[in-house]
Amino acid sequence: MDVKKLLEQVRDGVVQVEDAQEALKNLPYEDLGYAKLDHHRKLRSGFGETVFCQGKPDAFLLEIYKRLSERDGEVLGTRASEEQHRLVKEAVPQVAYDPISRILKVEKEGKERKGLVAVCTGGTADIPVAEEAAQTAEYFGCRVDRIFDVGVAGIHRLLSQRERIVRANCIVAVAGMEGALGTVLAGLADCPVVAVPTSVGYGASFHGLSALLTMLNSCANGISVVNIDNGYGAGYLATQINRLAVK
Amino acid sequence: MDVKKLLEQVRDGVVQVEDAQEALKNLPYEDLGYAKLDHHRKLRSGFGETVFCQGKPDAFLLEIYKRLSERDGEVLGTRASEEQHRLVKEAVPQVAYDPISRILKVEKEGKERKGLVAVCTGGTADIPVAEEAAQTAEYFGCRVDRIFDVGVAGIHRLLSQRERIVRANCIVAVAGMEGALGTVLAGLADCPVVAVPTSVGYGASFHGLSALLTMLNSCANGISVVNIDNGYGAGYLATQINRLAVK
Amino acid sequence: MDVKKLLEQVRDGVVQVEDAQEALKNLPYEDLGYAKLDHHRKLRSGFGETVFCQGKPDAFLLEIYKRLSERDGEVLGTRASEEQHRLVKEAVPQVAYDPISRILKVEKEGKERKGLVAVCTGGTADIPVAEEAAQTAEYFGCRVDRIFDVGVAGIHRLLSQRERIVRANCIVAVAGMEGALGTVLAGLADCPVVAVPTSVGYGASFHGLSALLTMLNSCANGISVVNIDNGYGAGYLATQINRLAVK
Amino acid sequence: MDVKKLLEQVRDGVVQVEDAQEALKNLPYEDLGYAKLDHHRKLRSGFGETVFCQGKPDAFLLEIYKRLSERDGEVLGTRASEEQHRLVKEAVPQVAYDPISRILKVEKEGKERKGLVAVCTGGTADIPVAEEAAQTAEYFGCRVDRIFDVGVAGIHRLLSQRERIVRANCIVAVAGMEGALGTVLAGLADCPVVAVPTSVGYGASFHGLSALLTMLNSCANGISVVNIDNGYGAGYLATQINRLAVK
Amino acid sequence: MDVKKLLEQVRDGVVQVEDAQEALKNLPYEDLGYAKLDHHRKLRSGFGETVFCQGKPDAFLLEIYKRLSERDGEVLGTRASEEQHRLVKEAVPQVAYDPISRILKVEKEGKERKGLVAVCTGGTADIPVAEEAAQTAEYFGCRVDRIFDVGVAGIHRLLSQRERIVRANCIVAVAGMEGALGTVLAGLADCPVVAVPTSVGYGASFHGLSALLTMLNSCANGISVVNIDNGYGAGYLATQINRLAVK
Amino acid sequence: MDVKKLLEQVRDGVVQVEDAQEALKNLPYEDLGYAKLDHHRKLRSGFGETVFCQGKPDAFLLEIYKRLSERDGEVLGTRASEEQHRLVKEAVPQVAYDPISRILKVEKEGKERKGLVAVCTGGTADIPVAEEAAQTAEYFGCRVDRIFDVGVAGIHRLLSQRERIVRANCIVAVAGMEGALGTVLAGLADCPVVAVPTSVGYGASFHGLSALLTMLNSCANGISVVNIDNGYGAGYLATQINRLAVK
Amino acid sequence: MDVKKLLEQVRDGVVQVEDAQEALKNLPYEDLGYAKLDHHRKLRSGFGETVFCQGKPDAFLLEIYKRLSERDGEVLGTRASEEQHRLVKEAVPQVAYDPISRILKVEKEGKERKGLVAVCTGGTADIPVAEEAAQTAEYFGCRVDRIFDVGVAGIHRLLSQRERIVRANCIVAVAGMEGALGTVLAGLADCPVVAVPTSVGYGASFHGLSALLTMLNSCANGISVVNIDNGYGAGYLATQINRLAVK
Amino acid sequence: MDVKKLLEQVRDGVVQVEDAQEALKNLPYEDLGYAKLDHHRKLRSGFGETVFCQGKPDAFLLEIYKRLSERDGEVLGTRASEEQHRLVKEAVPQVAYDPISRILKVEKEGKERKGLVAVCTGGTADIPVAEEAAQTAEYFGCRVDRIFDVGVAGIHRLLSQRERIVRANCIVAVAGMEGALGTVLAGLADCPVVAVPTSVGYGASFHGLSALLTMLNSCANGISVVNIDNGYGAGYLATQINRLAVK
Repeated sequence: MDVKKLLEQVRDGVVQVEDAQEALKNLPYEDLGYAKLDHHRKLRSGFGETVFCQGKPDAFLLEIYKRLSERDGEVLGTRASEEQHRLVKEAVPQVAYDPISRILKVEKEGKERKGLVAVCTGGTADIPVAEEAAQTAEYFGCRVDRIFDVGVAGIHRLLSQRERIVRANCIVAVAGMEGALGTVLAGLADCPVVAVPTSVGYGASFHGLSALLTMLNSCANGISVVNIDNGYGAGYLATQINRLAVK
Repeated sequence: MDVKKLLEQVRDGVVQVEDAQEALKNLPYEDLGYAKLDHHRKLRSGFGETVFCQGKPDAFLLEIYKRLSERDGEVLGTRASEEQHRLVKEAVPQVAYDPISRILKVEKEGKERKGLVAVCTGGTADIPVAEEAAQTAEYFGCRVDRIFDVGVAGIHRLLSQRERIVRANCIVAVAGMEGALGTVLAGLADCPVVAVPTSVGYGASFHGLSALLTMLNSCANGISVVNIDNGYGAGYLATQINRLAVK
Repeated sequence: MDVKKLLEQVRDGVVQVEDAQEALKNLPYEDLGYAKLDHHRKLRSGFGETVFCQGKPDAFLLEIYKRLSERDGEVLGTRASEEQHRLVKEAVPQVAYDPISRILKVEKEGKERKGLVAVCTGGTADIPVAEEAAQTAEYFGCRVDRIFDVGVAGIHRLLSQRERIVRANCIVAVAGMEGALGTVLAGLADCPVVAVPTSVGYGASFHGLSALLTMLNSCANGISVVNIDNGYGAGYLATQINRLAVK
Repeated sequence: MDVKKLLEQVRDGVVQVEDAQEALKNLPYEDLGYAKLDHHRKLRSGFGETVFCQGKPDAFLLEIYKRLSERDGEVLGTRASEEQHRLVKEAVPQVAYDPISRILKVEKEGKERKGLVAVCTGGTADIPVAEEAAQTAEYFGCRVDRIFDVGVAGIHRLLSQRERIVRANCIVAVAGMEGALGTVLAGLADCPVVAVPTSVGYGASFHGLSALLTMLNSCANGISVVNIDNGYGAGYLATQINRLAVK
Repeated sequence: MDVKKLLEQVRDGVVQVEDAQEALKNLPYEDLGYAKLDHHRKLRSGFGETVFCQGKPDAFLLEIYKRLSERDGEVLGTRASEEQHRLVKEAVPQVAYDPISRILKVEKEGKERKGLVAVCTGGTADIPVAEEAAQTAEYFGCRVDRIFDVGVAGIHRLLSQRERIVRANCIVAVAGMEGALGTVLAGLADCPVVAVPTSVGYGASFHGLSALLTMLNSCANGISVVNIDNGYGAGYLATQINRLAVK
Repeated sequence: MDVKKLLEQVRDGVVQVEDAQEALKNLPYEDLGYAKLDHHRKLRSGFGETVFCQGKPDAFLLEIYKRLSERDGEVLGTRASEEQHRLVKEAVPQVAYDPISRILKVEKEGKERKGLVAVCTGGTADIPVAEEAAQTAEYFGCRVDRIFDVGVAGIHRLLSQRERIVRANCIVAVAGMEGALGTVLAGLADCPVVAVPTSVGYGASFHGLSALLTMLNSCANGISVVNIDNGYGAGYLATQINRLAVK
Repeated sequence: MDVKKLLEQVRDGVVQVEDAQEALKNLPYEDLGYAKLDHHRKLRSGFGETVFCQGKPDAFLLEIYKRLSERDGEVLGTRASEEQHRLVKEAVPQVAYDPISRILKVEKEGKERKGLVAVCTGGTADIPVAEEAAQTAEYFGCRVDRIFDVGVAGIHRLLSQRERIVRANCIVAVAGMEGALGTVLAGLADCPVVAVPTSVGYGASFHGLSALLTMLNSCANGISVVNIDNGYGAGYLATQINRLAVK
Repeated sequence: MDVKKLLEQVRDGVVQVEDAQEALKNLPYEDLGYAKLDHHRKLRSGFGETVFCQGKPDAFLLEIYKRLSERDGEVLGTRASEEQHRLVKEAVPQVAYDPISRILKVEKEGKERKGLVAVCTGGTADIPVAEEAAQTAEYFGCRVDRIFDVGVAGIHRLLSQRERIVRANCIVAVAGMEGALGTVLAGLADCPVVAVPTSVGYGASFHGLSALLTMLNSCANGISVVNIDNGYGAGYLATQINRLAVK
């Protein structure tokens, strides 16, 4: 159904008001321009569509990368494998892959980066998740400061970076095992802390459950938590917060 | 905003088609008659509003019972206490309370009951949850056959009721502890079985978790599960299924 | 023991009433025709035997497919691998395999499909489980409408399908991660919703536990839950409900 | 140790450079003005000290309220009981208590409120936690829009509030049971969503665990989670985000 | 339906063989004497009916005690409260109550006790559960040797009782907290060990879960486990085993 | 230290009583003949040593099989792989392997089997665990009756075997998924039931946890539980019980 | 049996060597002086018996306090209630009770305290558990330094106490909620850290589980964990470690 | 910033006291010599840096081993694979690998070992974790006594080693499955027991959770717990305790 046409018919007396009213009641939501509005929102807000690559069938993945890189000139994919990289590269040669973060993307050159997001990790094993967060935030236009391997078991390492930490508009705290990094960061800084538990650890870490519970139970103010290993989600949220600050 | 008025203005040339189109885009959903439609759906389907009494502040509870009993002549409330009964009775004298099911209701007389729902329990301690299911189904217009205390530890008790069981359009299986009743019932009957785990038990029943897992892992076909102690939900669902059969 | 023969002997005075009474007391259950009755029930109800292929030894699987396809002309197998497909195909060439749903079946042509079951998914990763449900329902004689990728994170996608959704006699809601699809569907429609949590997700999805708990705790009426990834169970149950409606 | 005095002694040649260097190595941290700096940070950022009242001994609680209300003219206490209210009121008559949110506070009059935080709930039982969040955000200087009882089981209630929702700088989504509210909100709006699971529910809600897992596994972007029932933490975090937007 | 009468009618030619065959197909199970057989089994095996008193409504409890004590001259009730004792005593004055085991029973005098069951506990706090086991076994005719407070933290206490332990036909091992008693006992003795985890403990004992897991993971041979705090179940099972030995 | 020698020295006056008393105080336990006694106990009771093969290094496994088969003429090994079979066979050619139960054993011919243990399973997938139990019981001298695939979803299959079931001295009930088999068996029979949960299943079976909880919460009397998949433990325990009956 | 007497009989030729050897084989362990040795060990090591008061019947508690205070002049009881205090005080007037730690003790005056144990807490709500640890260590002869309310959310509070912390031979770290205190302490100090999770917190702290997992997953070296709220156990262990240092 | 230089400038009147005071306030922590102090602490205490090899990228691992073996002449790496051994060996030929403990180390010859740590295991499958503990303690300078395969299912094996056990300054108790070893050891000895749960087991051992809970709930005094399979952590802690004793 075409709303504009219906309204013209009402104007021209071809359709009665009551009939038009009835038609509008059952109007599919997208006919209200809702979906387009949604599409506009994405473009306006600068958050283009992203792809969770893991487990995607090859043909489907290829199609998405081709279509999005043609339409938008950009694609951000997460949790991609080296095999998926090779697959996509044949059809979309400008695609770039980072084996640490497992991000597979096509990105426009010369994007301006604004504000500041600090991405911190407890240990070196948390870096893949942290890079997923950092590169997501960079893709969406944030300046990012990486402060890695500052876990609380050696508190002086963290404290020595205090000046860099307090400059950020948003801090992403990535940590596995005991996961206490977020609490100490939230105690040092004034800005929101997005905590990402990682599945790094063994035994009673229960694949990230330990770090997750630690972060949810933080005694500090100004801290919230995303899913285990969800670097992308933290990077996205940090971008939203950073944008509010630089608007 | 009034859609009818807008359309009249379009018809009369007071409002341009483009402006009307824009206005409709941001139309609050209820102005589309959506909420009314929803209200109509409830009346048409025969499922009036119900009240989860537990924890409701007194003033709020009283207001709901007064308003609904006036508007609809009926109210179904679940998990009500004896105190709530006394409170409501002063303002709505026709309210009736059943201390077993903890249902507090105003019900029209002479309602016809159709079809057949069988409500079975494993033990006598499961009866309060079963009664919540049975009385909910009756309130919404089902005939109900109560078959209590037929747990699988004494399988002959259950088998001796086979004829009553297979006559139903839907079976509600209420059981705590090991919760195997639903599986045996689904093996005996052709109709859907709605399983309700109860928190009856102690130790490793973990407040109904044991029965819940048993029911979810049933080897039988045609069985699904609702929340622990959720007699109301099972009664509602059984009513929906029974109605499909008697339509 | 042959009941008929025994009764004839009683009639003919060959066996005393008391002796016959004693014999009947210990009558094996199947001698009562129970098992046959059971067999008849299956044929009458249209639910032939199905095979859970995963983990079945090759020889056993082959034997089942050969015997059932000869006896009934039909077999429905779930969770079959590509290897099992090749194995069975050599002996039963008419067998068909769908790698998405992992269903391996022999099906009579020209079966009539009645009523309507809607099978919905939250995302594309839930499709394998949804197809197991949909194809099971189709095998047992339902018309199925597939409404995929309508998760609640983009609620307009779901709402735009409202008209298709409300036409069904039963809705199967398949979703992983946060699993809220079933609740929204049950709020939109009048018919029973069978919710299937999937193991899609990572981290705190705990292999489907998150979606399972969400679905069990649904605030909506008319929803029940089957085991994680149990598309077959949902399809079977939806068929039972759909049949009650089309009888 | 007094740093200023030490430096004066170095200047005056009373203390050798090497000895001063040694002394500074073991300098207690607060002598660096760190604690004061911390105190300044609190005053500067506008987040005064708050009190978790639950379980505090009477004498201790009284002392805190007296001291803070004298020093700062303001105190924010959470999870206070009616008894604690009466106790404090005798010594600090200007204290105000809200039995819904259980907030016990002394607040300066005429505080300006800026920006906009939307606090939404799934049901009416979630309101106490939501009020804790809303009043915390108001105490710290936010304008708050309360949008209660818009759970996803009746999605039209939520959609009809879309315009109010998208105006906020930060959304607090408070929900128990299946907890899907946050996902739908994050799908509708561009701003960060802070999700608060509540312990509202029964059975397999496991005291809020179900809602917590739902929220952590959200398919939507831009959502993070705080501890179960932690309205205060959500209000604090929303304030931080709102301030970044209004700076 | 009366089977004897039916057979007589067949004999007398009043009923056709085919009609009788049909009638027998739907014969309720109890008409086969099944239930009576079951009743006989209870009497023959010496295990009369028992009552789980906890949560039983007063009227129901009273009725059961009156009926059973009249019919059988004996009743065994578990988990009874002091209030229930007083209630029953008025109607059944010969009832006896033990506040430790919370057993409320009517027992015939002069019952012979045979064989030997050893009931051991880890600590004194486990004694209520152990007494429930011991008195259950005694009620059903076992000789019982109580060996209490022999937990593995002081292994010499246990070893000094080795002679008493190895004489039993069955050992009941009752322990909370770390629950290792059963393993050591099974290592010392040749007979079956029934392990009863208790909810004694705090913190990470998780209401008996810790002891339960310990017992299920025992490295020793000849040990099995019943539910947390299920002294009755252990006593019943020990009686069955002891009887096999003394037959 | 040699106790006999010490006593001879006391007798001969070479060692003083006080010195001997002191020496005995610190006597290593095995010098008391304890370990030998233990060894004797094993031989006397007929339970020779058994080997848990899984994960054993090759050299160690080989050594054990060689030594035990030479010393005792018998070895029972569980959870052996096909590779381990080939390895051992080269050195111990009389070893026999069963790929279903994964038992690798050397067994004397012509062993007499006494009494009766019934081993039942819910489904065919439970057979490997059941065979481990059955063959363990047979190895230790029991007669075993295998009653497989009698799960409660088709209760008539189980009931038709009632006569075989009630003949046993001990029943082993092996079941995964909902695990209700043990309860129904314990309700039918008088003898002890040893329930073995299996890890058969998927989704909310949580690798056997569901069946384990079901069995622990059984409403029936005379049932106890061993670890998930612990067929060996059940077979051992059933043997102990069966021996008490046949002594 | 009297070992000395037996040996004398051997010496005197009254008992044969072989008969004595046999008698010694079955010698109850305590006759070897084992229990006495054990008793001696307690006295020698300075760890007298202690009493877990919670749940002890009054008569039993009274008896223990009377007997131990008479025999040893000292008793240490934990988890005592105010009622238990009043009860014991009547019979043992010198008993002292501390309502914070819930320790009820009789202690000799003028005990020397050696070495140094630091007892630290994250918050003020952890103090009851910390006091149980501190007073236990003091009772057993340690000097104790209490460093309370130094949680990691305000890391400067902890760092300002570094000098006091590093002086200890053993640190007890008591913390609930996110429980990260132990990790930071172990990173600052060289000595063993005994971490005590507390049940302080709400929501996803799950009664101390969160802090427990945090502590078990600590990235720091030199840290171990005791049960939730087990202040006594930590104090005891700290005493053992402190003694090794001061010996 | 150089503190010494600043102080010289204060001394020389080049910098004002107030300016120096300000500069010191923001002094990065390491400029206080903190990190160096930390470095000194490591060297002084004898605990050099260690490497958790598992999951380390090859280049990074190689670099660490080269740098540390050059600087310190020693490296201790845990959880190394055979592949990592081969990789490092090419660059650092003096490296040694133990496939049981998976320790990959460069160690100076002729190191003196002092005191005594006893490392005990319940079974032979626990030895890899025990060797990690033992070799860690030896690397850091402890004498170690290995007492393996003394699980509590055969208590005499453990008791026969009592003399060796009580000689140690610290006992490491390594056990999986039911994990009761630590409790019995702590009951026998006076020194601290560090309990290490292992993931050895199956079914309800839940990858070490069972042993972990057992150890945390130990009824014995003087026992604490480290993470599942954390042999390194136990060896480190045992070394700290042993050093306090030999100082």
